[in-house]
Amino acid sequence: MVLAEFAMFPTDKGESVSQYVAQILDEIDRSGITYQLTPMGTVLEGSWDEVMDVISRCFKLLEKQSNRVSVNMKIDYRKGDRSRMKSKIASVEQKLKKELNK
Amino acid sequence: MVLAEFAMFPTDKGESVSQYVAQILDEIDRSGITYQLTPMGTVLEGSWDEVMDVISRCFKLLEKQSNRVSVNMKIDYRKGDRSRMKSKIASVEQKLKKELNK
Amino acid sequence: MVLAEFAMFPTDKGESVSQYVAQILDEIDRSGITYQLTPMGTVLEGSWDEVMDVISRCFKLLEKQSNRVSVNMKIDYRKGDRSRMKSKIASVEQKLKKELNK
Amino acid sequence: MVLAEFAMFPTDKGESVSQYVAQILDEIDRSGITYQLTPMGTVLEGSWDEVMDVISRCFKLLEKQSNRVSVNMKIDYRKGDRSRMKSKIASVEQKLKKELNK
Repeated sequence: MVLAEFAMFPTDKGESVSQYVAQILDEIDRSGITYQLTPMGTVLEGSWDEVMDVISRCFKLLEKQSNRVSVNMKIDYRKGDRSRMKSKIASVEQKLKKELNK
Repeated sequence: MVLAEFAMFPTDKGESVSQYVAQILDEIDRSGITYQLTPMGTVLEGSWDEVMDVISRCFKLLEKQSNRVSVNMKIDYRKGDRSRMKSKIASVEQKLKKELNK
Repeated sequence: MVLAEFAMFPTDKGESVSQYVAQILDEIDRSGITYQLTPMGTVLEGSWDEVMDVISRCFKLLEKQSNRVSVNMKIDYRKGDRSRMKSKIASVEQKLKKELNK
Repeated sequence: MVLAEFAMFPTDKGESVSQYVAQILDEIDRSGITYQLTPMGTVLEGSWDEVMDVISRCFKLLEKQSNRVSVNMKIDYRKGDRSRMKSKIASVEQKLKKELNK
C-alpha cells in the first residue's frame, strides 16, 4: 500500500490559488479513493497505480487551464494491505503515551 | 507567516522508524509551536526563524543517534500574521460547498 | 513539457542504497528518456505520461525487492514543446552575467 | 555532512521567476558554500547550520519582495566529513560500469 502526500497548483495565476485546489479536491473526493486533506496538501492511500491515476487526472485538469504548474509528491510504500492513514499517527501517540494535535 | 510541512527519519535503522518519529513529535509538542501531525509529516506554523529553530532541534536529536538521516520540507510563506492552519482547508470547502475528509 | 526531479530508495536496506539507485538509473538510461543525474536525484524531461511511465517502472523494480520504499518528486510543467533541461540554468547565468557551478 | 537540494520562488509574480532565482543564486555563489545548480534546484553541501544559514538568507531576500513564497528542501545527512557532491554519482556509475548523463 502506498501513502502519497501531494500538492499541485498553477504558478501563473497569482497569489491565491484556492479555486484550482478546490477543483483538484473535488476530483479526488469524487474518485472514491481514501484521502485526507491537510493544510499543506492531500494524502491519498491505495495501490501505486490507483494513486498515480488520481494524481494524473488532477494534473490534466490543471494543465488545461494553466501555462505553468508546480507539483510535489512524497510517497511512503510499505508491503502489505493494511491501511496506515490512521495507524501511523496512532503508533506515535502510543509510543509517547500522549495525544498529539492532529 | 510560514506553514512548513516536514518529515524526518533515520535511514539506517530498518523498516520501522516510529520510535524516532515519536522523539521528534515530543520535541515539537513541548516547544509550544502551533503544529498538526498528518499521516505523512508534521505541519508547523510560525515565523521562518521559529519554524527553522524547531526543525533544527529535531534534526540534532536524530543526528546524535543516526549515521544517515533523510529530511523533506515544503514551505508556504504568505505575508501577514493570519494563521492559515485551519483557514486553507476551510477556504477549499467553502469553494466546493461541501465538507472534505480532513 | 514536464521537468521532474525524483529520488527513490528502499528504507529497509540500511545506510547504503547505491545498489538500488544503480538499478533505477539503468532503467532510466535504457528507456531513452531525456535525463540528468544530480547528487540528490534524477531530472527527467518529457510529457507527463512519458515521465510517469518511467518513474512507475522504477518503483515496480524496487517494490519487488523491498518492504518499504520512499519516493520524492518535484515537477515543473510549462506549456510548450521547448526543452528546458539546459535553458533554465542558462537563463539564470545570463541574468547574473556570470557562470555558476553546474 | 549535509547535502541539501532546494528550490525557492515567489508564487505571486506570474509564470517567469528566473529574475528571483538569479538573486538567490548570486547570494549562494557569493557565500562561498559548495554548491551545484541543477535544472530543478540547487544542491548545497556543508554542516546543517552552514546550509540552513544560506537557505535562510535566500528566503529573507525573497520575503522582502514577495507576498507569497514556495520553498522545497530535501536533505541527506550522512555522518562524517567526506564530500559526496561528486561521489554519489560516481558510486552509481561504478556499480553500472557505464557513464550516465550528469
